[in-house]
This record gives sequence, structure tokens and C-alpha cells, in this order.
Amino acid sequence: MTTSHDVDALVDQVRQQVSDLHAELVRYQLVIWTGGNVSGRVRLGGDPAEDLFVIKPSGVSYDDLTPGSMILCTLDGAVVPGSAGSERSPSSDTAAHAYVYRNMPEVGGVVHTHSTYACAWAARGEAIPCVLTGMADEFGGEVPVGPFAVIGDDSIGRGIVETLRGHRSRAVLMANHGPFTIGKDARDAVKAAVMVEDVARSVHIARQLGEPVPIPQDKVDSLFDRYQNVYGQAPQGTMTDPSAS
Amino acid sequence: MTTSHDVDALVDQVRQQVSDLHAELVRYQLVIWTGGNVSGRVRLGGDPAEDLFVIKPSGVSYDDLTPGSMILCTLDGAVVPGSAGSERSPSSDTAAHAYVYRNMPEVGGVVHTHSTYACAWAARGEAIPCVLTGMADEFGGEVPVGPFAVIGDDSIGRGIVETLRGHRSRAVLMANHGPFTIGKDARDAVKAAVMVEDVARSVHIARQLGEPVPIPQDKVDSLFDRYQNVYGQAPQGTMTDPSAS
Amino acid sequence: MTTSHDVDALVDQVRQQVSDLHAELVRYQLVIWTGGNVSGRVRLGGDPAEDLFVIKPSGVSYDDLTPGSMILCTLDGAVVPGSAGSERSPSSDTAAHAYVYRNMPEVGGVVHTHSTYACAWAARGEAIPCVLTGMADEFGGEVPVGPFAVIGDDSIGRGIVETLRGHRSRAVLMANHGPFTIGKDARDAVKAAVMVEDVARSVHIARQLGEPVPIPQDKVDSLFDRYQNVYGQAPQGTMTDPSAS
Amino acid sequence: MTTSHDVDALVDQVRQQVSDLHAELVRYQLVIWTGGNVSGRVRLGGDPAEDLFVIKPSGVSYDDLTPGSMILCTLDGAVVPGSAGSERSPSSDTAAHAYVYRNMPEVGGVVHTHSTYACAWAARGEAIPCVLTGMADEFGGEVPVGPFAVIGDDSIGRGIVETLRGHRSRAVLMANHGPFTIGKDARDAVKAAVMVEDVARSVHIARQLGEPVPIPQDKVDSLFDRYQNVYGQAPQGTMTDPSAS
Repeated sequence: MTTSHDVDALVDQVRQQVSDLHAELVRYQLVIWTGGNVSGRVRLGGDPAEDLFVIKPSGVSYDDLTPGSMILCTLDGAVVPGSAGSERSPSSDTAAHAYVYRNMPEVGGVVHTHSTYACAWAARGEAIPCVLTGMADEFGGEVPVGPFAVIGDDSIGRGIVETLRGHRSRAVLMANHGPFTIGKDARDAVKAAVMVEDVARSVHIARQLGEPVPIPQDKVDSLFDRYQNVYGQAPQGTMTDPSAS
Repeated sequence: MTTSHDVDALVDQVRQQVSDLHAELVRYQLVIWTGGNVSGRVRLGGDPAEDLFVIKPSGVSYDDLTPGSMILCTLDGAVVPGSAGSERSPSSDTAAHAYVYRNMPEVGGVVHTHSTYACAWAARGEAIPCVLTGMADEFGGEVPVGPFAVIGDDSIGRGIVETLRGHRSRAVLMANHGPFTIGKDARDAVKAAVMVEDVARSVHIARQLGEPVPIPQDKVDSLFDRYQNVYGQAPQGTMTDPSAS
Repeated sequence: MTTSHDVDALVDQVRQQVSDLHAELVRYQLVIWTGGNVSGRVRLGGDPAEDLFVIKPSGVSYDDLTPGSMILCTLDGAVVPGSAGSERSPSSDTAAHAYVYRNMPEVGGVVHTHSTYACAWAARGEAIPCVLTGMADEFGGEVPVGPFAVIGDDSIGRGIVETLRGHRSRAVLMANHGPFTIGKDARDAVKAAVMVEDVARSVHIARQLGEPVPIPQDKVDSLFDRYQNVYGQAPQGTMTDPSAS
Repeated sequence: MTTSHDVDALVDQVRQQVSDLHAELVRYQLVIWTGGNVSGRVRLGGDPAEDLFVIKPSGVSYDDLTPGSMILCTLDGAVVPGSAGSERSPSSDTAAHAYVYRNMPEVGGVVHTHSTYACAWAARGEAIPCVLTGMADEFGGEVPVGPFAVIGDDSIGRGIVETLRGHRSRAVLMANHGPFTIGKDARDAVKAAVMVEDVARSVHIARQLGEPVPIPQDKVDSLFDRYQNVYGQAPQGTMTDPSAS
């Protein structure tokens, strides 16, 4: 059982992580002005539907973000009353993040940006084909396009979940909008946001002067498998999707 | 009634803001060398025609800008004699800024840059089509092209006003020249300058590999409406154009 | 008459300026590794053929440049024996800089880079057409291409001088090589290097999606005239070419 | 004969150099997140087959790299037990680096990145043609493409060696993967990684608007010869390939 003291410490830890990770969006030039947002799930250890998440406030400059200004929400997207930062509005994309957390309990982090090259593929409604081994490693194949959806109800969140559930890719290009990425935690989702812009850019540039050579599917499969299980200092489990098992 | 002491404080506040905002042009790589300029209106509370504005000096390095080196002008574009910085010449685009302030009393800030992608659309004399939801949010549709005009009389200012009056967009691409943006204050105009380069770049890149999918007009309308009224920590009113009401 | 003490002070001043200006090449991303170079003429006040110039050492990292490591040369390109830094080799482009100083006494600074977009036009051997007012201001028309020439004799210097003598442009794109720029002093030549990359990039991007609209010649002329005589805090004289007068 | 004290000092020196050089990959934007790696040979002065090399750990942030976290390996790619950092896994590209060191004793450094423009040429399986004098200087002709190979055995290393042995270029674009570069030491290999991205970008951009003009082969030859023997503060020998002599 998690005590309220434990919960406070957990929330503070996720606040710090989510606040820090916004600096990575700036470093990799994925965002401008106050655009873009990172959130992280606070896993309370009970029913995942009762978890919380921490997200960026709306319309605040990246220079001014601090752990205390991050906003704590329940999985229905409501601000937790009386929590630090609760006098402010959360990101206008909060409902989409909340929908993902409610419907994909394995997801621990969500990121949204308007990064340039990913938006360009999204504006054409075109998936990014897998023509680089680094892309096979990271996304296990193409990066898919999600439906056109506008803010105001659950349609963005639903589009993300319907596209990514059971898919190897942790990134979706929402049509005419931009990329959303998920991960086992907020850092993993930020990595996916960084990598999706990188592959969007490299494959775009490759295509400008001719057709890239496709990678055979069995090679894509073995690259993805190896990367998920061997790369780095400790094995990284692929997010297993309970709804798919 | 505004006392001269109040006016001094107001002017100092706008000097600080305008000086600081030039750093945002550098941060977002919208300017090089001494190019580009930001100005901000000093609203004196009486007849808007008697307001003042603060603008960057001509040909001075961005590293050397300070609040005291900003130049205070009347709305006919003349330097206020004896004011701080008045020994220097104001930006060579001062007449265009002045024309906008005289003819659009709702405008509190004006920005001009030669940002790369916006200039590219301007060189072709082509409006940027609205194919991204972030562009619908920010500009409410396409970013229009203004007439070809050269420095030396009111033709640039007139071209800006004729294009933007009654238009949703706060940015105009002056033909063969570059973007001018307006806003309710200098910060809002700088945001428009940052965003117009961003959409100019994203839509350019989208178009390089095929035709972007248009966004239905009713969706553009609802996105623009929501963004103007809901986004951020406090409602942002759309600039209402008195001359259009 | 200039005393040797005066000469030392003058040389030190140009060493400082030339050393500092290399940081601008880095800031505007015109150079990588040890590529690129700036030089500045030391005007001794007598026969311009007996002036000296200061140039970057060969193959030294930009992080390690100091005024004392700049190399002092005579106008035949020889290192002044015993001067600070003389134990090192000057830039491998020294002969080209020297040729320009010998043959264009009005030139006070020379810059060479391999900046990306200018090199792209140079690789196609194509002049940059004047389709932006900022380009008319700065270069007074197109930026011309110079001949293909390889290092080892005076052919690069000669190609620069033959192309730029009597030309409005302070920049030449040496075929399959890259831009060389000149100016009334080293700072002016660096500005030209910054601006030529900027227009090379903007016009390239404009052309990617169609044909830019040309600017009428009389407008180009009046923009160039105004900019040379009015812009900035003090009138900037056009470099007058004695050989052309 | 090298004593174990000498070996420790040598290893420490290469650890420092390899650690520092990773910052150059970041500076020139050749890598993102934890991607990319530099290694340097530790020449023990005996049989080159018994040399060691130092390489980046796998999946560690560039911000956290220190000399002590670099990993010391034998030329069969095994971590030297008990050496500093040996509790961590070396880069997942270690086997490829080791293969190069085993088979090209003249190579003192190896670098791998996923730099954008080099990856774009690699995705199309297209060599970069030599159309700029700076490219002739650095690579002596085109930058070749290596075979498609996946991680897991010696096929990447073998592809690098088969492509670069006896070739002037120190860079190979491994098909659908990215660039590997070699050099006489780690710094030289990093320079090649920086330069290959630079020429990949410049030639790509040149080609976007038409065909670049080729450089005659005899000019390419004389440029390469001069650059290898004259440029910089001390003569840089071309790596001579013993297996080719």
C-alpha cells in the first residue's frame, strides 16, 4: 500500500523529471515559444486507472518551467485541487495525454511537439518509410499517420491510441498536426520525440534526390528485436501492451 | 490624465521590453548581423494618434542593444528630441512602423525580419497555405503576401496596413522583401514573427515532397476561435480593428 | 610619417580585430573545424603597396585563436620575420588574400569560407540572382561566379580581382570552391561573408518551389544607392575602385 | 619495451582524447541522444595486433561522458577485465571498430555517427561525387558507399575495411545505415566525420537545383596531394596502408 508520504515523494520525483525533460525539447530544437509538452505518469502501485500524471502548464515560457510549476492531474484530465501549480491551467493538450494514460496503462510518458520535419510528413498525411537501420532499431518499421482530429474532445487521444496500440512505433504523426510519442516513462517518450524528428528529417532529405532503398522486412525485424533487448547498459523491455496480450 | 512622471515610467517599461525582445529574434535565428527590428507602442491613454513608440537604433549590433539605446519616436516617425538614444538614427524601417501605429490604433507592437523561409515565400510572392493546425491556431488561415514596395516613403507601411486590416493573420510577407508582423503588444508581434518563420519552414518542407492535405475551412475557423479565446493562462483577446467595426 | 611605434599599435589593433572577427564566422556557422579565414589590411599611410596584412594561421582550431597567434604578412604574402606568430604558417589561402590587397588598394579586409549554400551555388557555377530587397541593399544585384582555379599560384587571387573589380558585389563565388568577400575593412568583409551565405540560402529555398519574381533593375539601383549612403549610424562610403575611376 | 606504467599513461591519454572528442560530435550536431561513438587505438609499440582501443560506453548521455567512463578493449572487441569503466557495456558498434583496428594497423581512430545528410546518401546507396575543392582536399575524390550489413557479426567491420582499404577516402557511407570514418588517430577520424557531413550537405544542396560541375580528375589529384602534404602547421602524412604496399 502506498502512503500519502510516499505519494508526495513520487509526485515530486516525476515533477522534477518532467520539468527537466522539457529542456531536451529545447536542446533538440523540437519546440518554439511555449509550444510542445511532456507529461509523466505517477504510478501509485494500485489500479492503474487511479494513477496521476504531471504535465506542463499552458502558455508558459520554457525558461520559466520549474518542478513546482508542473501541474498534477488525475487520469480524467482534471487538475488535482490544492496541488502545487494548480492555480494555473495545464497544457491545452492535457485531455489527449489523459486519454492515452487511461487507455494504455503500460504508457508512462507522453510527448507532443510541432517539430518541423515530422509536421511536414503529417501535413501530407504520409507515413515515414523505414529506410535506415537506426529507424528499424528505434521504431521497428514505419512511423504511422493518425487521423485528423481537432482539440476539444477525446478525438486526438483516441486517434493516438487507435494508431499506436499494438504497433511497434512509439510515435504517431497526427494528420495536419504533428507528432505524439509515448514511452515506458517520460524520458523514453522524449527520446522517441527526438528520434522521430531525426528520422523524419533524414528520410525527407534522402527522398529529395531519389528513392531510398528499402530494408528487407526480416532485417527490420531482427534490428528491432536486438535493439529492444540488448542496447544500452540495462535491458530495456519493449512496452508490452496488456490490451493486446 | 497621464503625468509626465507616469509617461517616463511607461517609456522605460517599453524600452526594457523592446530591448529584451530583440534577444528572442536572435534566439530563434530570425536575424543576422544588425538586420531586423522590434518596436512597441507607448500607450499614453489619450488620443491614440498622440501615442509614442520605441524602436531599435539603425545598424547597431544585437550584442550592444540596451534599454537606453532604444529610440523614442512620435507616430509620424520623428525621434523625440532630447530623449535617451536620440543622438542616434532609429531603424531604417521606422517610417513603416510609424505608419502602422498611426493607422492601426489597436496595434501595440511591430516586428520586421528577413527570416529565411518567410523571405523565400516572399521572393516568389506566394501566400503560405494553411495546412497545419498550429497555423490555424496562430494565423487563422493563410499568411498573405503584401505588395512590392521600396523604402523611402509610406508605401511599405501602407502595404502592411492594407493587407492586414481586417485580416486574421498578424503576419504579412512583403513581396521580395520579408515578413512584417503586428501584435497587441511587442511580445505578441515577436511571437507572430517566430511563428510565421516556423510555419513558412514546415509548409515549405511539406511541399517539397508532394501536396499537403488542406484543412477544411470550418475546422480552421474553430481552431482559430478556440486558440484566441482559451489558450494560455489568461484569455487573449483577438485584436479588434476599430476601423473595421 | 608613421613611426615604428605607431606601426606596432596599428598592427596590434588589426590583430585584435581580425582575431575577434573569426568568432563571427563560428557564430554564423560559416566554418567548421579549422576552415575559413579572415584578414585585415594594416594601412601604413604611405604607398598602399607597402601596407601589411594580418591573417589567421593555417590549420589552427578556432578555439585557440588569439591576437598574438595571427600572422603578419607583407603584400607579397611573406610572413614578416620575427613578428608575433611568425613561427607558424599563415593560412593556405594567404597568396590569394595578398593578391587582392596588392591589386585592390581600396580593399581593407578579405574573408574566405566554405559556407554551405554559397558553396552549393559555386558547385553549379551559378550566380545568385537578385530577388530580395536585402540583397539589392547589400550587393547591388547578383552575386557573381569567379573562374575555377586551384591553389598554388596567383590564379585564385586573380580570379577574385577580375570578377570583383568594378562590380558592386563584395562577394564572389569561386567555381567549385566557395565564397571570397572583400570590404573596406575586415569587419565589412565579414559582414559580406555573413550576408552572402544568407542570400545564397534564402534564394535557394525560394527557388526550390518555383521561380522567384525578379526585382526591376531601377529598384535594385535605388535600393543599393540608399543603403550605401544612408543606412546605419554614419554614412558608409561605397568602396571606390581607383582602377575604375 | 613498454612497461605497464607506460601503458597506463598511454591508456589515460587516449581515454582523455576520446572522451573530449565526443564533444566535437555534439558541437557539429552529428549525433543526438546517445547515438554515435568515437574510439582511439592505444599503440603499445609491439605487434599492432596486440594493441588496445578505447571506446564510448553504450547508451550513456553525452553530458555524462568522462575519461574514466570510456571502455578499454582488446582488438577482438572484449572489455579488458578490471579496467576503469569495465562494469559497463561498450558501444554496440564495438565489434565493427575492433574489426577495423585488427585489419588496418595504420588506423588510429574510428568514428561512427548517424549524421543527417550522410545518412540520406546512405539511404539511397549513392556515393557523394567530388564537386568541391574542399572535398578533393579532404577525401581525394568521391565518398564511397559500403555494403548493407547488420549488427551482430563482423559484416559491418568487413564492409568498412573492404571499402576503405586502398581508398583515398577516410569515410564510407554504409548502405541504409550511416557514415563510418577512420584516421591516423581519433582526432583525425573525428575531423573526417565532421567533413563528410559537411560535403554530404553541400553537394546535396548543390544537386537540388541542377547538376554540379565535375572537377577534372587531374585537379582532384593535385588538390589531394597538396592538402595531405602541405596544409596545416606540420606535414600530415597520408595514412599508408601496409596491406596495400
